[in-house]
Amino acid sequence: MSLHPGLAAVAGLIGAWRGEGAGQYPTIESFRYTEELTFTDVGKPVLHYMQRTWSPAGAPMHTETGYLRVAGGTALEFVLAQPTGQTELAEGLLVATEDGFACTLESRMVNSGSAKQVDATERRLELAGDVLTTHFAMAAVGVPLTHHLASTLHRHAAAIR
Amino acid sequence: MSLHPGLAAVAGLIGAWRGEGAGQYPTIESFRYTEELTFTDVGKPVLHYMQRTWSPAGAPMHTETGYLRVAGGTALEFVLAQPTGQTELAEGLLVATEDGFACTLESRMVNSGSAKQVDATERRLELAGDVLTTHFAMAAVGVPLTHHLASTLHRHAAAIR
Repeated sequence: MSLHPGLAAVAGLIGAWRGEGAGQYPTIESFRYTEELTFTDVGKPVLHYMQRTWSPAGAPMHTETGYLRVAGGTALEFVLAQPTGQTELAEGLLVATEDGFACTLESRMVNSGSAKQVDATERRLELAGDVLTTHFAMAAVGVPLTHHLASTLHRHAAAIR
Repeated sequence: MSLHPGLAAVAGLIGAWRGEGAGQYPTIESFRYTEELTFTDVGKPVLHYMQRTWSPAGAPMHTETGYLRVAGGTALEFVLAQPTGQTELAEGLLVATEDGFACTLESRMVNSGSAKQVDATERRLELAGDVLTTHFAMAAVGVPLTHHLASTLHRHAAAIR
């Protein structure tokens, strides 16, 4: 099955990614984590996305899932569900680079009745060959948009866990 | 691993479900489909959800994914990502029945820049032992909230596809 032509700009994302990250936020202790992402071709002009993180001791931490859409060749639309009670629709324009792309995505959030309040997020994805760098900032629990997470991931043959 | 006690009211959903459905909407031809749902315990007070449908000829149709949360024992929060470009946060109160529950959930939607406009959805889940009935209405593309999908699913030993 050949890839949908609308996904050409993000074809380099398809597969599994694994690496290390660091988190910080004004309201919590800083922490480190292991992260795994998968972007999976489902035969339509959208990739299925799944993320998982673990503590250095191997305990499951965060997970999130959803779909990455590409509109008009270069507009990324990241449609996400959070188990913490938020939906997150993050959008941004892809900037091509020599061996990949960079994209900063700004979100619109909806919080469930029992969720901690997250007002906005900003995500940045940088793909350079077999290295994927992620940055994540959020405005939450009364704190304005502030850096929260950064990770450096390497292309992996297959999902590990 | 025992189930998180906060999920007790929806414990009967855990597993795979499969059955037949029918769709209709003022703007399209009516259709039939095969549907499979999975609700998976992830060791936290939330279930992972994945849905897939196929045409009678076996062609993949819709898929959606996300998480089902339970707040305060009986408030369901269905946090969903749609590959068609919508996030959907659907909430409702669970009503216990003799052998399961019923719940009507009203959504808050966010549409991506390139998506067809969906303004609101209403979902109803009825669990009765090994039968799960679903109803889905939506307000979309200028049509007010109107019935769209209904399916009757039966508990399955494992995911089939």
